[in-house]
Amino acid sequence: MAQLNWGMIGGGEGSQIGPAHRLGALADGHFRLVAGALDHRPEQGRAYAQRLGVVASRAYGDWTEMLAGERGRDDRPDLVTVATPNSTHFEITKAFLEAGFNVLCEKPMTLTVEEGEEIVRVAEKTGKICAVNYCYSAYPMVRQARAMVQAGDLGRIRLVVTSFSHGHHGDATDADNPRVRWRYDPAMAGVSGQFADCGIHALHMASFICNDEVTTLSADFASTIPSRQLEDDAMVNFRMGKGTVGRLWTSSVAIGRQHGFDIQVFGETGGFRWASEQPNQLIYTPLGGRTQIMEKGEAGLCEDARRLSRVAIAHPEGFPLAVANIYCDLADAIRGEPRPGLPRAAAGLRSMAAVHAAVASARAAGQWVDARPPMFR
Amino acid sequence: MAQLNWGMIGGGEGSQIGPAHRLGALADGHFRLVAGALDHRPEQGRAYAQRLGVVASRAYGDWTEMLAGERGRDDRPDLVTVATPNSTHFEITKAFLEAGFNVLCEKPMTLTVEEGEEIVRVAEKTGKICAVNYCYSAYPMVRQARAMVQAGDLGRIRLVVTSFSHGHHGDATDADNPRVRWRYDPAMAGVSGQFADCGIHALHMASFICNDEVTTLSADFASTIPSRQLEDDAMVNFRMGKGTVGRLWTSSVAIGRQHGFDIQVFGETGGFRWASEQPNQLIYTPLGGRTQIMEKGEAGLCEDARRLSRVAIAHPEGFPLAVANIYCDLADAIRGEPRPGLPRAAAGLRSMAAVHAAVASARAAGQWVDARPPMFR
Amino acid sequence: MAQLNWGMIGGGEGSQIGPAHRLGALADGHFRLVAGALDHRPEQGRAYAQRLGVVASRAYGDWTEMLAGERGRDDRPDLVTVATPNSTHFEITKAFLEAGFNVLCEKPMTLTVEEGEEIVRVAEKTGKICAVNYCYSAYPMVRQARAMVQAGDLGRIRLVVTSFSHGHHGDATDADNPRVRWRYDPAMAGVSGQFADCGIHALHMASFICNDEVTTLSADFASTIPSRQLEDDAMVNFRMGKGTVGRLWTSSVAIGRQHGFDIQVFGETGGFRWASEQPNQLIYTPLGGRTQIMEKGEAGLCEDARRLSRVAIAHPEGFPLAVANIYCDLADAIRGEPRPGLPRAAAGLRSMAAVHAAVASARAAGQWVDARPPMFR
Amino acid sequence: MAQLNWGMIGGGEGSQIGPAHRLGALADGHFRLVAGALDHRPEQGRAYAQRLGVVASRAYGDWTEMLAGERGRDDRPDLVTVATPNSTHFEITKAFLEAGFNVLCEKPMTLTVEEGEEIVRVAEKTGKICAVNYCYSAYPMVRQARAMVQAGDLGRIRLVVTSFSHGHHGDATDADNPRVRWRYDPAMAGVSGQFADCGIHALHMASFICNDEVTTLSADFASTIPSRQLEDDAMVNFRMGKGTVGRLWTSSVAIGRQHGFDIQVFGETGGFRWASEQPNQLIYTPLGGRTQIMEKGEAGLCEDARRLSRVAIAHPEGFPLAVANIYCDLADAIRGEPRPGLPRAAAGLRSMAAVHAAVASARAAGQWVDARPPMFR
Repeated sequence: MAQLNWGMIGGGEGSQIGPAHRLGALADGHFRLVAGALDHRPEQGRAYAQRLGVVASRAYGDWTEMLAGERGRDDRPDLVTVATPNSTHFEITKAFLEAGFNVLCEKPMTLTVEEGEEIVRVAEKTGKICAVNYCYSAYPMVRQARAMVQAGDLGRIRLVVTSFSHGHHGDATDADNPRVRWRYDPAMAGVSGQFADCGIHALHMASFICNDEVTTLSADFASTIPSRQLEDDAMVNFRMGKGTVGRLWTSSVAIGRQHGFDIQVFGETGGFRWASEQPNQLIYTPLGGRTQIMEKGEAGLCEDARRLSRVAIAHPEGFPLAVANIYCDLADAIRGEPRPGLPRAAAGLRSMAAVHAAVASARAAGQWVDARPPMFR
Repeated sequence: MAQLNWGMIGGGEGSQIGPAHRLGALADGHFRLVAGALDHRPEQGRAYAQRLGVVASRAYGDWTEMLAGERGRDDRPDLVTVATPNSTHFEITKAFLEAGFNVLCEKPMTLTVEEGEEIVRVAEKTGKICAVNYCYSAYPMVRQARAMVQAGDLGRIRLVVTSFSHGHHGDATDADNPRVRWRYDPAMAGVSGQFADCGIHALHMASFICNDEVTTLSADFASTIPSRQLEDDAMVNFRMGKGTVGRLWTSSVAIGRQHGFDIQVFGETGGFRWASEQPNQLIYTPLGGRTQIMEKGEAGLCEDARRLSRVAIAHPEGFPLAVANIYCDLADAIRGEPRPGLPRAAAGLRSMAAVHAAVASARAAGQWVDARPPMFR
Repeated sequence: MAQLNWGMIGGGEGSQIGPAHRLGALADGHFRLVAGALDHRPEQGRAYAQRLGVVASRAYGDWTEMLAGERGRDDRPDLVTVATPNSTHFEITKAFLEAGFNVLCEKPMTLTVEEGEEIVRVAEKTGKICAVNYCYSAYPMVRQARAMVQAGDLGRIRLVVTSFSHGHHGDATDADNPRVRWRYDPAMAGVSGQFADCGIHALHMASFICNDEVTTLSADFASTIPSRQLEDDAMVNFRMGKGTVGRLWTSSVAIGRQHGFDIQVFGETGGFRWASEQPNQLIYTPLGGRTQIMEKGEAGLCEDARRLSRVAIAHPEGFPLAVANIYCDLADAIRGEPRPGLPRAAAGLRSMAAVHAAVASARAAGQWVDARPPMFR
Repeated sequence: MAQLNWGMIGGGEGSQIGPAHRLGALADGHFRLVAGALDHRPEQGRAYAQRLGVVASRAYGDWTEMLAGERGRDDRPDLVTVATPNSTHFEITKAFLEAGFNVLCEKPMTLTVEEGEEIVRVAEKTGKICAVNYCYSAYPMVRQARAMVQAGDLGRIRLVVTSFSHGHHGDATDADNPRVRWRYDPAMAGVSGQFADCGIHALHMASFICNDEVTTLSADFASTIPSRQLEDDAMVNFRMGKGTVGRLWTSSVAIGRQHGFDIQVFGETGGFRWASEQPNQLIYTPLGGRTQIMEKGEAGLCEDARRLSRVAIAHPEGFPLAVANIYCDLADAIRGEPRPGLPRAAAGLRSMAAVHAAVASARAAGQWVDARPPMFR
């Protein structure tokens, strides 16, 4: 199977996200990097792209240059990854989609609901793939959880409880550290801090596993470090289309929690929980039965769980390969085999609607509000 | 040290709570059972008390008979435990306090806030001990947590997150089982189901460890099994007097969770978590440091943690001995050494105020309400 | 059911073992303390016994005095517990058995194999109960494990792997601390250090769960702190009567392990593991199936597991109540309902034979030796 | 930094090991696949190599053809991976080393000690890198463990206890399954079954972390499934050059253990444990202190732990990226920066000596034997 051509925007030297995407794209051999505009500093970006094996003529100084240079080529990228600062996602993603490229956009896909709706419309109009990097949803045992819900193994889902809480912003004396501060500054982060950063992963996961959408929500935001303008801790109660009750807690001041992203799903005939720090297990309890440890690689898992695992049972696979699984889904989709599990623009839009709804609710003392984007109401 | 005399009301043969109290009272040799009215069926109660070693003349048919028989005796009980159905707690506790007995009342102490205030007043007036069986607060490592907060080891407490969620009422086909059904029937359970049953343990724990009181709250209640009139799942956001943000989730439909009571506390300079299924550890993370496993029995623990532990480090002590710790505190208090950790009538009253506040908030779509009893506002 | 009379020898004030036995005997109300010789210092022993509620005439200065005083009484103890220093177990146990008392002896039951055989003979001749306090075997989920093996749920047992390793003697600078030093001094501890102290609990557990006996063994002993004459670390390979392969590791220098006693059993059709720090679970995996978490209190457990548990599923019960379970078994046995799970003199003898066999093997560079007492060959 | 050229022998379509090596080599962009002889069936091998992007002229039918075709090229592979059946490792590795290629050989490097010594001599003579894929040693927290031992953080190492035990060969009815049977058939597997397969990973790990070598050992082998000629369970006691006591258990019939590879190291001033199923943590206890959870990505780790980690703290990295870390070390070594952590031919030789020593000891009822290869005595 021929390798696909891949281009990348952002993810320059020293960024955390760049290596994750490169490893994700390269690990399984589906893609080769052919073009890039990797840095907001043109020269550094060009030089770095060449060190990564891109030929000089396709190592660009910025994304507009790359768009101009690549759009007419026969060997242009089959996929472009957008891993730039949040405020630029909309513009770049839209431009590349309109030029006929498939795009994988980092989250958040946009900053406003209107922009999100625009991306959904553009993707639909052009017929191009617009994926969003909700990479946790690509862990094999998350796919297994979703498949079990879809198969009805848990009956109607009554309740989903999720958290994404860490303590890495818990040091008040660190509040002036620019790498932390911007998260809580509306001028740079927009309307929401921790909920927009981590909470939307958890909210997406709830929808993804339950195969349902958030309809209404009520939020309680807190800035537990008083100097912060945006929330560093949030609780969001929600309801989903099929009646499921949802609870979501997200925090960046939960000192001692490292990567505290987990989800519990409870239905009429069973429940399970999954945690990002031990992603290769799904802990399942059938109603009236014993708790069972399901393992990546065990016999009888769903097709996605099998397809997106590389090594034998109990050999752990971690975060970078969850990102790689997104690229596997993309490669398949580009080659003509769409994967329903791949998060698309609609998911990015729903997240943005939920962020704005949560902000509105929190400002109104927890009033319940509609969490859906207007175009999906 | 001479043994103390103990009387018991309720906790008849076949009840779960009776053995827990007997073991708690007897285990450390502080008390001997001298009188009892153990069953609402007078003959069974008298017979059972005698089988437990109570002399016939002090094996009573009901609590009024016991009150009449015991109040004038020189060797009357130093402590009376009230472990009867919830609706009778107020009346019995009040009567025994007024007659000059020390009382340990099962939770909930009363059904209404007014009754709770009455008990507080009576206890104050008589000078007698009125304790409430918030037994989880008597685990050694819970006392240690409280001591660390009091000592300022975590700095100001920003956030407390607690849950008490199990799945033992998750079977809808079991909804007609009388042992389950009454919990969700207002005629029998009062205004609240799961929150009044389990949630108040978690709320008490938050106050207990943080050494602070809940002032306002906002609640989201759900009956995830539709036939239930009262909630089987609740989320309560709250604020405490010193500004701490609180999150409390309680559920009885969380299939796969067995005894899912845990608490996480996050302050300016550290955080910790404790879970009732592994009660002998406290998981502590200082700001900027590594997570540490603190063990019951390790060197340097607070006086209460040392005093309320019986065997060496890593030899687990469980739930029945947490109840026994309440009796240790009571024995000390009766003998003239009051223990600040012992939950008293004020704690029982605050729980009742919080239940009624949560019900009011849930009915008003999560509106924030005052959670304090009027007498403490 | 009338309470039984109980007497205690040893376990004086400040000892660790005394409170564990008192709690064990009293917790469930089966016994009342009526006589005691609690301390090698006569006056302290008498005074302490009286503080524990023993009448002055039955608070003895030493065990010979107690034997003389109690043997002729109508209300003499139904059970005498021997919790004195190891070197005195044989003499006291033998004397009380011969005088017609039932005895619970702390481990090790004797110091030599010959003494062990003598106790077995005396117990047989007198028809009295001689139990040994292998208290770990009385945890509900250990009984469940044994019942599953007996029922054939795991098929033939191929392999048992157990360890009892802690790090509490890992500080070489502590080697002169008398509380530690005696363990490794042949003059005080006999032929073996760590294996005789902790290893025999693990070896008993292997026999107990597998319902089989150790026949041969090969040992590797090490004094990892060079100043020690006796081993502080030992590995013992063994074979059992039905062909099971055994592996036992015990250490007192395993810094970081607290109460590291666990066992894994593997048969033809399944395996399980149990650990003393989480004693309320049994982790079970059927061949070809998923690992399941079995919980104390779940439906369908064996009669012993149900009988020896006091509180609901997932409410932990710990070490002191495992000791109490030994007393429950004793109370039943005394009342005429013998409990096969109660460890008897034969188990104490087999441990002693295994200790001496392991010492011989270790001295002979791991040569395989017969581990059975002569009388059972 | 220019990519390196990489060739592969073995690891054909459908093998488990091929994808692991490809992901390992490609993930970080250090290597590109330029030549291959991937299958013992020439046509399938050539076709598969081309599907993986190798040009037709460098897609070979067997390794001799590849050696002939590549040895004279300017752009010949900088590294050749040997992932063929065990019995061919020696011959292929030797040939490529002699032709001046760097080689990464799958374990076991050879079948005999003599062959192992020959490889060591050839590697030395040619100056080429001969690495062996002890990939577990490339986990960041394993490198951290080794660094802490080297820095003396644990003092002199008294004791190392390791196991590599799974239950995937526990089904006796599966004993005729060719994928299982060959392991226990001397005609195909050589002198040892489970110890040679998994045990040597554990033994290597002990040496690796302790920075020491096994000198003598005593083994107890068992075929718990009687039809097996080679052992499916083994216990090996050993001693290391600096006096450390070692205990190693390996089993393939431990039903319920999945990937049960773990190690505990105990020194004078602390201990730690690491487990392959949770490879991103190192559980560390300083003497007299609390157990601490060390996390990949935390501040202050050793250079190797930092260099070989790709994503932030608590984002798990798993088995395939441990293999990738071996390739990172190889890339650095090839580029002139040798990495001491990279396992070399000497390690492969020592493993083979240990296997033969263990077999000899087991046959001699556990007699202690020299475990060193003659050339290192």
